[in-house]
Amino acid sequence: MTNKTILLNKRPVGKPQLSDFKFISTEIEELIKGEVLLKTTYVSVDPYLRGRMSDAKSYVPPFELNKPITSGIVAEVVESKNKEFKKGDYVSGMLAWKEYQKSNGEGLLKIDASKAPLSTYLGVLGMTGLTAYLGLTEIGKPKRGETIVISGAAGAVGSIVGQIAKNLGCKVIGIAGTDDKVTMLKSSLRFDAAINYNTTKNMAEAIKEVAPNGVDIYFDNVGGPISDAVLFNINKFARIIICGAISIYNNTELPQSISVQPFLVKNSALMQGFIVSNYAEKFPEAIQQLSKWLAAGKITYAETVVQGFDKIPQTFLDLFDGKNSGKMLIKI
Amino acid sequence: MTNKTILLNKRPVGKPQLSDFKFISTEIEELIKGEVLLKTTYVSVDPYLRGRMSDAKSYVPPFELNKPITSGIVAEVVESKNKEFKKGDYVSGMLAWKEYQKSNGEGLLKIDASKAPLSTYLGVLGMTGLTAYLGLTEIGKPKRGETIVISGAAGAVGSIVGQIAKNLGCKVIGIAGTDDKVTMLKSSLRFDAAINYNTTKNMAEAIKEVAPNGVDIYFDNVGGPISDAVLFNINKFARIIICGAISIYNNTELPQSISVQPFLVKNSALMQGFIVSNYAEKFPEAIQQLSKWLAAGKITYAETVVQGFDKIPQTFLDLFDGKNSGKMLIKI
Repeated sequence: MTNKTILLNKRPVGKPQLSDFKFISTEIEELIKGEVLLKTTYVSVDPYLRGRMSDAKSYVPPFELNKPITSGIVAEVVESKNKEFKKGDYVSGMLAWKEYQKSNGEGLLKIDASKAPLSTYLGVLGMTGLTAYLGLTEIGKPKRGETIVISGAAGAVGSIVGQIAKNLGCKVIGIAGTDDKVTMLKSSLRFDAAINYNTTKNMAEAIKEVAPNGVDIYFDNVGGPISDAVLFNINKFARIIICGAISIYNNTELPQSISVQPFLVKNSALMQGFIVSNYAEKFPEAIQQLSKWLAAGKITYAETVVQGFDKIPQTFLDLFDGKNSGKMLIKI
Repeated sequence: MTNKTILLNKRPVGKPQLSDFKFISTEIEELIKGEVLLKTTYVSVDPYLRGRMSDAKSYVPPFELNKPITSGIVAEVVESKNKEFKKGDYVSGMLAWKEYQKSNGEGLLKIDASKAPLSTYLGVLGMTGLTAYLGLTEIGKPKRGETIVISGAAGAVGSIVGQIAKNLGCKVIGIAGTDDKVTMLKSSLRFDAAINYNTTKNMAEAIKEVAPNGVDIYFDNVGGPISDAVLFNINKFARIIICGAISIYNNTELPQSISVQPFLVKNSALMQGFIVSNYAEKFPEAIQQLSKWLAAGKITYAETVVQGFDKIPQTFLDLFDGKNSGKMLIKI
């Protein structure tokens, strides 16, 4: 049986290219005791993977050249010699970009296809939802009536952050890159206001207009000039959650921005970077809250699902052009 | 009796000039019930005053044009119609740049000249010491064995931060602008290492050399390129305390720096601006701890004392050329 696998062929310089990836065909060896054979169902592509493709020190080690790329994946158990898993079970985990792969079960989480759609275990009930919930609550500490701005608001994390903030009684302003996204944020996702940064000349002014009382929380997925514009509007004791910096991940030179220090000292403001695993001990309580909201219709999730294993690299590249609304997934 | 007073003559553009200040002579009216007459003894000049000379929104309102400038002052009560204060008492408070002034007693703190030198009530036992102690402990949360870098290390706040960090068991690295300051930090103030940024080509490398295990805490008094260099050396969960940004206070255009966001997200690091009054409820416990260390010789304070009321404006300007070691004061 041919089994397609995607390797990291070259470390991207600047924006990743299709040629940075390589498809090969691998054989699957026989299962030994304790192993399961997994058939990939959904593959999650996320901006942070760009960081792992570089050689730089980061919170997770870089991918190795000529080794398979890994990301969040939902897979079906198609054969099992491990008593924890039986044929037909679904699992999620950090797995390789392969059609089929063996696993000894380590790091696999059994998921219940009857309770929520399989894809949500990579989204609102997976790392994406946890990142949104824990970044917002642990660092942002939102209080009823406060104003929050979210950049990358139509993205996987941003779209959930906004809805959680609404559930917690905040005024929610999203920043996104197309009019369609702006419309979606306001209509489907209950955002109070949304701004298209591609058609707005003076972002600082535009934010001020919809946040006349200033910005108490900024959930930052993008960095760069959009984040600079938000700084002009922060209130005393503002909290800025640095979740990602997609706008500058592909820069080959160190990006420059306005100096944040004077804004932080003037406003006694906080800026905090994080990775969701910092808050691992809070995962169960977060999942419980997210499941409750999901069941009650208080979180709507947006997905962009592309069909076919061969589309994984291109779908990853499309993230950097903002082609997704919500979570970007490949269905195999 | 002529009574010299210093007014804000013009709002400085860029670096302040002597012509931004104006000396006038004022009359002192007779005391009414509840008032005291104060004779200025020590005047504190501090970088943050530059911010108040501009018209921009900040944590404290701007000075008014043609009104006296105020700063931390120690004064002697030379006449009293207030039963809380008697002739010969010394007080500290935010007072006007005047030789003599009346006060209704509000905001005045009686200080004990027998317990510690008068000038320390503007320094290690005043706002300077509180800023150092509370910024370091409340935001930096130092743990024994951690490495801290301090910029503006020979300045009033920085020189105290370093000694507190030593008292708490940290490895302390100072950054300053002359070889004399570097020598003072290492010999008199027990810093483990110090770097002269004016004679060091590659600051990021120089920091790495003396902090091979990385930087856990950065107490930032300066902003600008020095702070950029520290960022390359921060550890996971690093805490960056933004106390000031003297290197860019005089900029007329918005200063640019490398984008901090990628560094913060990669390291789950925190950056927090503050003003000491945020922690007012902790002042008594902080003063107690600082007094204890001072009495035990575990904090040495450096002062640069200039003589004469007329020297106040020039002494303030000298701050921006780094002419002070430790607290910059004018003795009248």
